[in-house]
Amino acid sequence: MKQGPLGETLIDCGVETVGGLEAGRLLSEVCLGGLGHVSFETSNTEDPFPFLVTVHTSQPVLACLGSQYAGWSLSGEDNGKKFFVLGSGPARAMGSSEKLFEELGYHDDAESTALVVEADKAPPPALVEQVAKACKLSPERLTILYAPTSSLAGTVQIAARCLEVALHKSHELHFPLENIVDGMATVPVPPPVPGFVEAMGRTNDAIIYGGRAQLYVSGDAAAAKKLAEDLPSLNSKDFGKPFAETFAAVKGDFYAIDPMLFSPAKVTVTALETGESFQAGHIDTAVLARSFR
Amino acid sequence: MKQGPLGETLIDCGVETVGGLEAGRLLSEVCLGGLGHVSFETSNTEDPFPFLVTVHTSQPVLACLGSQYAGWSLSGEDNGKKFFVLGSGPARAMGSSEKLFEELGYHDDAESTALVVEADKAPPPALVEQVAKACKLSPERLTILYAPTSSLAGTVQIAARCLEVALHKSHELHFPLENIVDGMATVPVPPPVPGFVEAMGRTNDAIIYGGRAQLYVSGDAAAAKKLAEDLPSLNSKDFGKPFAETFAAVKGDFYAIDPMLFSPAKVTVTALETGESFQAGHIDTAVLARSFR
Amino acid sequence: MKQGPLGETLIDCGVETVGGLEAGRLLSEVCLGGLGHVSFETSNTEDPFPFLVTVHTSQPVLACLGSQYAGWSLSGEDNGKKFFVLGSGPARAMGSSEKLFEELGYHDDAESTALVVEADKAPPPALVEQVAKACKLSPERLTILYAPTSSLAGTVQIAARCLEVALHKSHELHFPLENIVDGMATVPVPPPVPGFVEAMGRTNDAIIYGGRAQLYVSGDAAAAKKLAEDLPSLNSKDFGKPFAETFAAVKGDFYAIDPMLFSPAKVTVTALETGESFQAGHIDTAVLARSFR
Repeated sequence: MKQGPLGETLIDCGVETVGGLEAGRLLSEVCLGGLGHVSFETSNTEDPFPFLVTVHTSQPVLACLGSQYAGWSLSGEDNGKKFFVLGSGPARAMGSSEKLFEELGYHDDAESTALVVEADKAPPPALVEQVAKACKLSPERLTILYAPTSSLAGTVQIAARCLEVALHKSHELHFPLENIVDGMATVPVPPPVPGFVEAMGRTNDAIIYGGRAQLYVSGDAAAAKKLAEDLPSLNSKDFGKPFAETFAAVKGDFYAIDPMLFSPAKVTVTALETGESFQAGHIDTAVLARSFR
Repeated sequence: MKQGPLGETLIDCGVETVGGLEAGRLLSEVCLGGLGHVSFETSNTEDPFPFLVTVHTSQPVLACLGSQYAGWSLSGEDNGKKFFVLGSGPARAMGSSEKLFEELGYHDDAESTALVVEADKAPPPALVEQVAKACKLSPERLTILYAPTSSLAGTVQIAARCLEVALHKSHELHFPLENIVDGMATVPVPPPVPGFVEAMGRTNDAIIYGGRAQLYVSGDAAAAKKLAEDLPSLNSKDFGKPFAETFAAVKGDFYAIDPMLFSPAKVTVTALETGESFQAGHIDTAVLARSFR
Repeated sequence: MKQGPLGETLIDCGVETVGGLEAGRLLSEVCLGGLGHVSFETSNTEDPFPFLVTVHTSQPVLACLGSQYAGWSLSGEDNGKKFFVLGSGPARAMGSSEKLFEELGYHDDAESTALVVEADKAPPPALVEQVAKACKLSPERLTILYAPTSSLAGTVQIAARCLEVALHKSHELHFPLENIVDGMATVPVPPPVPGFVEAMGRTNDAIIYGGRAQLYVSGDAAAAKKLAEDLPSLNSKDFGKPFAETFAAVKGDFYAIDPMLFSPAKVTVTALETGESFQAGHIDTAVLARSFR
């Protein structure tokens, strides 16, 4: 923890400091705005990767979409180069003008806040100033936490987005967010790998091929059934191979990838109105083995 | 949280407020009188219901039977109708005259306490007054937490009784309670379902067909072996179908159901005197699938 | 908790007090010098022993080798007999002159500390005095926690050494400790058994035949691969039968047992430099069944 040039507090979770899994667990809880629990767990000890990261929040929409989702597009000049990040964490609900917040009908007003960025260095002063201004705070009131995608902490904090991607895709599928009452999700802890593309690949694969989510929804059971059927990653045309291969196939054009790919491998949606549960998708251990090789 | 008409504190865990799984987890810890840990966990992610609720207390008899067991029969006039509940939680050890407390040789004397009731509304003043009086407290010193059986919180708090039912049945089987040294139990989180009978059915099925308990007992190993053999639910004549069907078959006469049905599906009893472990019962995924459909 | 004859604080975790699993969990966290988390978990509920004890620390070398490892050889006269123990816990880093601390380059200097001993009674004043003197503290500043091997707490605290033995064997195999960046391990909670040899056998078997570890290492991937191959217990000539049988075969001469036996059954080592993961070993349920009978 140190002070940045504008007085902002900087917490390095994996660049100069080791960080590690525990830093990633805490970073994930910061991403959730303190509204959820992230824990390490063990599944079958014979599995090649038996340790899981599990996320639970009793305010899934607010915690995952209003805070954890990396939706704040930020950029700033950094010694003549452009520094670009997608910010997540509670600062979004104070300063970001994402359209999503209108839908959520939510805005925070606090005396200090925190922003999480996936980056291999602290953001430049130009970006810090922009965030502080948007949040109507002086930079001293801002804490910025950062970890590279390929670090242990970065790996955990991305894998811990398993519930968030389930909610984000539910939203893309036009399922009413106000009907998502509760949820939990779990995902194998992916082994970190150097290189941004490889690391992005593995952490996404952990969710796409290994992620397991349970949602509890209000409203019509038919809508719950449809959500369960549409939600798992296998519905995507890009399902079936490690994400890094998909990324290479589109020559690194992220926006050429089917956005419907980003969701858990297997989901259960329980309709609270009737008590019925609907399941779809499956854990794809073969693709996981290729990705986590 | 609000104040009731007599000054009692009321915590609604699932009627007007959503509550959710986390409210259920905390409610379960209140039921245990603060003497145990209740946590959500993940088993095999390929399972239809992979999330578990696990209970551990190092004072199993006191926490489960002296507090969590819903043994305090309470009733009071509620706008001309009778309001009947079975109270659980630490208030029992202060105010309840259940015979069980003589056997436990335990009585609490505190400046405030909490009562948990499975109900779809706050208890009427007549009942609050009765509880406060029995506890020798003014109603302002009493906190009442309530959740309907069919709510997320209610579902969790009933499933979290898996260790308690193991202890209660051990007692029914005349196993000496003072010989139960430690224990843990786990149970799949059942999907909530509307309707009292259906909800009671599923939460009981989670324990009867999906519950797993481990007890550590002192005393004779032969007695430990006998306890392990007699404890699992499969010894009951009513074992084999979803609880709601059994309940319908006896036309809703709860007392016509074999009390030996209420116990975990599979148990291990370790005799500390010899180090031997005895197991019996099995997880019945077929009945669980019919119940959690 | 009571005061000993020299003013030391004594915490009995399983002699006169019951202690139990929770005392063992907390005792394990004391062993780790407060630098790690120890938790109970559930694996497959159909397993004969489905409850696990899981250890995670983001400072594995310091927590496990600098504190948890029972490396401080201590003895003192006790009513005419010799009382011998291997001390573990944070006191080691203050007072022990083990060669290991030179390699770790670590020494603590604090106003109070704690020592954990596997023993069926409190250590005699002669030993307490020796420890206090070595730590340069008055005995009033020393807390000594003890539990017999055969107690519930003792069973848990030994099983919770699964990550520590992985690190200790890595060190024996000359893997550079500074390259061990992070790690987790899990092990089934062994059923306690009376008798020191039997209890030592089961707790070691839990690790040797049931332990599962994941290490994240820096440095050369070839070295990580070699570590993974050499680390699991099955490489030992003494692998294959319950530890108590091995101990009996060498007529109780602990030092005649292959030190390479003491390691987890199955390990994964991830090389952070390349992202490759290497696995070796297997969970041996057959030997576990013979040991935990």
